[in-house]
Amino acid sequence: MDKNFVIRGVKMLKASGEIVMGNIYVSGDKISKISTDEPQNTKIIDAKNKFATPGLINAHTHASMTLLRSYSDDKALMDWLQKDIWPIEDKMTRKDIYFGAALAAIEMIRGGTTAFADMYGPCMDEVAKVVDESGLRGSLSQGLISFADGEKKLARNIELYKNFHGAADGRITVMFGPHAIYTCPPDYLKRVAFEAEKLGAEIHMHMNETKSEINDCIKNYGKRPFEVVNETGLLDLGMLAAHCVWLSDAEIDIINKKNVRVAHNPGSNMKLASGICPVTKLLAKGVNVAIGTDGASSNNNLDMLEEMRLAALLAKVDTLDPLAIPAAQAIQMATENGAEALDLKKIGKLEEGYKADIVLWDMRGADWQPNYNPASLLVYSANSSAADTVIVNGKILMENRELKTLDEEKILAEFTDCANRLTKA
Amino acid sequence: MDKNFVIRGVKMLKASGEIVMGNIYVSGDKISKISTDEPQNTKIIDAKNKFATPGLINAHTHASMTLLRSYSDDKALMDWLQKDIWPIEDKMTRKDIYFGAALAAIEMIRGGTTAFADMYGPCMDEVAKVVDESGLRGSLSQGLISFADGEKKLARNIELYKNFHGAADGRITVMFGPHAIYTCPPDYLKRVAFEAEKLGAEIHMHMNETKSEINDCIKNYGKRPFEVVNETGLLDLGMLAAHCVWLSDAEIDIINKKNVRVAHNPGSNMKLASGICPVTKLLAKGVNVAIGTDGASSNNNLDMLEEMRLAALLAKVDTLDPLAIPAAQAIQMATENGAEALDLKKIGKLEEGYKADIVLWDMRGADWQPNYNPASLLVYSANSSAADTVIVNGKILMENRELKTLDEEKILAEFTDCANRLTKA
Repeated sequence: MDKNFVIRGVKMLKASGEIVMGNIYVSGDKISKISTDEPQNTKIIDAKNKFATPGLINAHTHASMTLLRSYSDDKALMDWLQKDIWPIEDKMTRKDIYFGAALAAIEMIRGGTTAFADMYGPCMDEVAKVVDESGLRGSLSQGLISFADGEKKLARNIELYKNFHGAADGRITVMFGPHAIYTCPPDYLKRVAFEAEKLGAEIHMHMNETKSEINDCIKNYGKRPFEVVNETGLLDLGMLAAHCVWLSDAEIDIINKKNVRVAHNPGSNMKLASGICPVTKLLAKGVNVAIGTDGASSNNNLDMLEEMRLAALLAKVDTLDPLAIPAAQAIQMATENGAEALDLKKIGKLEEGYKADIVLWDMRGADWQPNYNPASLLVYSANSSAADTVIVNGKILMENRELKTLDEEKILAEFTDCANRLTKA
Repeated sequence: MDKNFVIRGVKMLKASGEIVMGNIYVSGDKISKISTDEPQNTKIIDAKNKFATPGLINAHTHASMTLLRSYSDDKALMDWLQKDIWPIEDKMTRKDIYFGAALAAIEMIRGGTTAFADMYGPCMDEVAKVVDESGLRGSLSQGLISFADGEKKLARNIELYKNFHGAADGRITVMFGPHAIYTCPPDYLKRVAFEAEKLGAEIHMHMNETKSEINDCIKNYGKRPFEVVNETGLLDLGMLAAHCVWLSDAEIDIINKKNVRVAHNPGSNMKLASGICPVTKLLAKGVNVAIGTDGASSNNNLDMLEEMRLAALLAKVDTLDPLAIPAAQAIQMATENGAEALDLKKIGKLEEGYKADIVLWDMRGADWQPNYNPASLLVYSANSSAADTVIVNGKILMENRELKTLDEEKILAEFTDCANRLTKA
């Protein structure tokens, strides 16, 4: 029923950056028409005081890490990982992964996110189940770490690809997820490249996140991470590279030449004190930079609206240029660039023929007044509770803040049980 | 009626950073008791799933600038001020100032802010009226600029002090508001100091916001701003100094010696690309650093929860130290330090004998799960729509997100009329 409807009288952000008023016609999974024609004989969503943007795309996260939100904060990176995060992750069961991702799905839909790139493990098939049930889009990858059952995990990533790539009406896609240069030596990366290439799969990997990662890489291999990874063949398969904080000019050239798509994670990079990704430099070179939240234990939420804001604000103060990443560009990074980062076709714009992945933002709050420029208000003033209606692939996942596909109460209860069990001494 | 009640069964953040469960007894304008005694014969606020913190204190803003939100963004500072902001401000009437501040009051209460330091002009008596009616606390100052009717404005600040300092049951206090070193030459600052001293008034001033301000000051006076201002006597009266981005070690020594309280404005400093206040350095020296939003045309909201988060995140990435400004310290800066910044006595802590300025945050949202550490969740994950109940001076200003003192619908309508008139060609 809700696969044919019209969003009537809505202010919308076009890919050009222009804001126009009109009606968005949705037929099946697509935007079939954008016009000012008066709609007839169809379901109408009255969008008075709403602002329509493409759905936000979270280009890098670890959905099930919601289980660890607020468990360990304000610590040094290695203390945090080794003493608090990894020991708990070791205890996670299939059920934990499912409910961790299900809570993440609730949070993402409630914040206007329609697609996400996820890397985690084990049991990514549980995340696939959540993507299927929630109606979201997910680009899933098995986190691969060579020393911890490297071959077994690689086999799982292959299986994940075979079972789920293109599943759920194409809403699920699968990438290979070599974790990082410090957990995957070059020989293992070559194994990953070999298997991924056989399937035509792309790569999702943490790259150049911390200074010590770079220093260790140079110590171990005499080269910087992108130089090492480039020699493994991985970059030729298409890579979504998360973080990219510490980059040499030579590495930026590699990124550019190999069309690496970058997932910028300003919140996590700030909170973990990793550093600042040179976003404006990358964008000026024509690199596709998208935005991600990273996991909820280093962010600590999956709020893409906040992440757009951080991307814009951090770029300005980092370059001391108030013109860096204006509002419309921040939205573009979180939508159009996100779609390219996840290799999603005809997604990320409000245009005829594009998939109907749409968010309607409620502009009635005090923080939306006066309303001179909705794009600026969204990026610099609003908060994610303004996400009112969320549509993915033509299906309404939330309407007037009511979730349509997920049983929020049940998921919260089960999630809490999982978290309590995990962190019990 | 609501001046005697008990907030029952609430998790609360103590000034020690400790989180405890108990009942908060409010009698008149004060917290009369915090205990686990079962309350009897009194109004009960059931605070299951709520987290109590002291009310947030916005240590630097320009409330009526809400009228200019989203009017001009992503511009260079001088372009922004000279071409867009100042010409509109010139047209503002008494009514505009009132409704601009009234909308700001709605936004502040809805976001858990209970007190604010405001500098603007003309017609600060209209802001005082809003403080009175809304139930908030306001430390108001007339913005003083020497070349634009400097003496007349100084007279207005004197009048403001005489009419409103200590008014509205002490919720209104008045400071003197010399705008900045680049708008107030030393002779004028001496005049301000002279008049303020006669009344025993304190000072609220923009200090060291941009690099060019420092360069111009050195060019004009051969010294840096704090050195020049120190010689005018202003610092001896007690100063709330907003921004403090570019500071020499000698200036930090002056700040320390003169007990200058700093209002850190991370959002505005990032958005305008002003730079980064050396917060951890100041805190290490024992300087009182509070947090402010600045005006809504450079932030672009009055959301203190977001501002706490930015303060914590920016300090971490600036120093590359993930331990910089942990969550509890960010809250302390926005509460206890805020009270000291505004010279408010017995405010900013949940302790017996303190004024009952309290926010109850609703912890039921997905972004509050799991709930290992409410302070961390508040600073790093939640958004300001979690502010559920707001109490100032023992009076409930919002309960279950319903405003008790302000007519939201009427204010929004009048505010919109004002904004439309102002920006009409």
